[in-house]
Amino acid sequence: MSGRAVDFSLPVRIFYEDTDAGGVVYHANYLKFMERARTDMFRSVGFGQQALLEQEIIFVVRDAQVKYRLPARLDDQIDVTVSVVKVGRASLVFEQSACLDGQILCSGCFTIACVDFSSMKPVALPDAYKQYLDSRVVPEG
Amino acid sequence: MSGRAVDFSLPVRIFYEDTDAGGVVYHANYLKFMERARTDMFRSVGFGQQALLEQEIIFVVRDAQVKYRLPARLDDQIDVTVSVVKVGRASLVFEQSACLDGQILCSGCFTIACVDFSSMKPVALPDAYKQYLDSRVVPEG
Amino acid sequence: MSGRAVDFSLPVRIFYEDTDAGGVVYHANYLKFMERARTDMFRSVGFGQQALLEQEIIFVVRDAQVKYRLPARLDDQIDVTVSVVKVGRASLVFEQSACLDGQILCSGCFTIACVDFSSMKPVALPDAYKQYLDSRVVPEG
Amino acid sequence: MSGRAVDFSLPVRIFYEDTDAGGVVYHANYLKFMERARTDMFRSVGFGQQALLEQEIIFVVRDAQVKYRLPARLDDQIDVTVSVVKVGRASLVFEQSACLDGQILCSGCFTIACVDFSSMKPVALPDAYKQYLDSRVVPEG
Repeated sequence: MSGRAVDFSLPVRIFYEDTDAGGVVYHANYLKFMERARTDMFRSVGFGQQALLEQEIIFVVRDAQVKYRLPARLDDQIDVTVSVVKVGRASLVFEQSACLDGQILCSGCFTIACVDFSSMKPVALPDAYKQYLDSRVVPEG
Repeated sequence: MSGRAVDFSLPVRIFYEDTDAGGVVYHANYLKFMERARTDMFRSVGFGQQALLEQEIIFVVRDAQVKYRLPARLDDQIDVTVSVVKVGRASLVFEQSACLDGQILCSGCFTIACVDFSSMKPVALPDAYKQYLDSRVVPEG
Repeated sequence: MSGRAVDFSLPVRIFYEDTDAGGVVYHANYLKFMERARTDMFRSVGFGQQALLEQEIIFVVRDAQVKYRLPARLDDQIDVTVSVVKVGRASLVFEQSACLDGQILCSGCFTIACVDFSSMKPVALPDAYKQYLDSRVVPEG
Repeated sequence: MSGRAVDFSLPVRIFYEDTDAGGVVYHANYLKFMERARTDMFRSVGFGQQALLEQEIIFVVRDAQVKYRLPARLDDQIDVTVSVVKVGRASLVFEQSACLDGQILCSGCFTIACVDFSSMKPVALPDAYKQYLDSRVVPEG
């Protein structure tokens, strides 16, 4: 992950709702934070999920690989990054991380499919998305 | 609440996901537990929410009043009760509680509206629901 | 609610995680948003919840009264307001709302108790909080 | 995953809280369901998480790999399975799945570390856990 340029970064504040009785952020919640960052990356170039949904298209997660290194705690403000790694006809791969003060707490690799809302079958990425994403793909390095 | 007969009771186990860094169940989660109990009360007589949704009908919460007395903790198994208090043409009132070993932790009163999925406008309760609910209304006392 | 001055307002973006199969924000999640706003109001004057927790003090919700008028949807950016209504020795009352384009979607009144982390028994509000909150109390209008 | 015996299986009902505006279960929630199943596997042999927490020990997820094949929907009752794959001194590997009517919707592999609550540093699994888990390890098949 360290070798990639970051396409987008979202600050996320940790509230009580995000933590558990272990005193730290509940592990599943990082997947929410990472989805927020992907969604806001798209929003930052004018692409909304509701507009997509109205075209009967949704993005669904096909594969999630997450490594947890250090915990975030109540009141922390973490940065959640997004790097576009691969763009297919109907799928996308993102590398993401959650960082605190420049230190990686958690890193993830997500494969997202573009599917029809009713059938849940793959559909081609809308052209505008495809164009934007192709321009963002970060060569490994 | 103490004066009412209970129409339905659902055991709910407390997991890490339900707790927060305060070491107890996060307050908003009791509203989830109470919705689980209402939903399972309907399911127990054969009424599913997905079937309702396919008729373009959803139940939405219009008013929630919740009193928190004692906290539930990790591993507790609480009982979440439902009493049907009032049945209108397109709305319902439920009194509910979350109990541990017979002691009330949290009690709530919920007004639910029956609405059209697209317009979010009130629609009459389906006849089968109306009939079932009328038979369950618990007179105060 | 309309007659009160607002002490703090927090913009909250609606993501997939906040919605349910009804296509709108799940009702319990507004309680999360309202807690985020209360927490950020305190943070805005330098009071963190983690610091409080380290003094063995937590704020717990004792009473929540929430009215739902209109739904928020995916991608909406709502404003969540806080008005300090009453400040006791060990308790607080807040009036809050969630608004979209100036229209109230949801309003709530929350009674919060200041308690000891281990015993869950009431403890006096820390002086700095008390002082700040007394200065914010909004006389009913 | 198909080649392994299952050590434990937990039925999980899908409620509105679990779904999102895409009409299906929100992807991060499967991680919650899988944790519920791991927790209940331990509970089924008398090991509670609260008791562990009182010994200042918590289990934390170090690595999660999740594949999503088919979506679960409102009202579905899925079975969430657990297979113990590897038992180390202070870590565990589980393979898990979420199934509907015998069909795998989602499968996951989780590495869990046993850590000290305060320091978040690894500590040896309690003897009783170690003994139980060693007896459950499923040789790859």
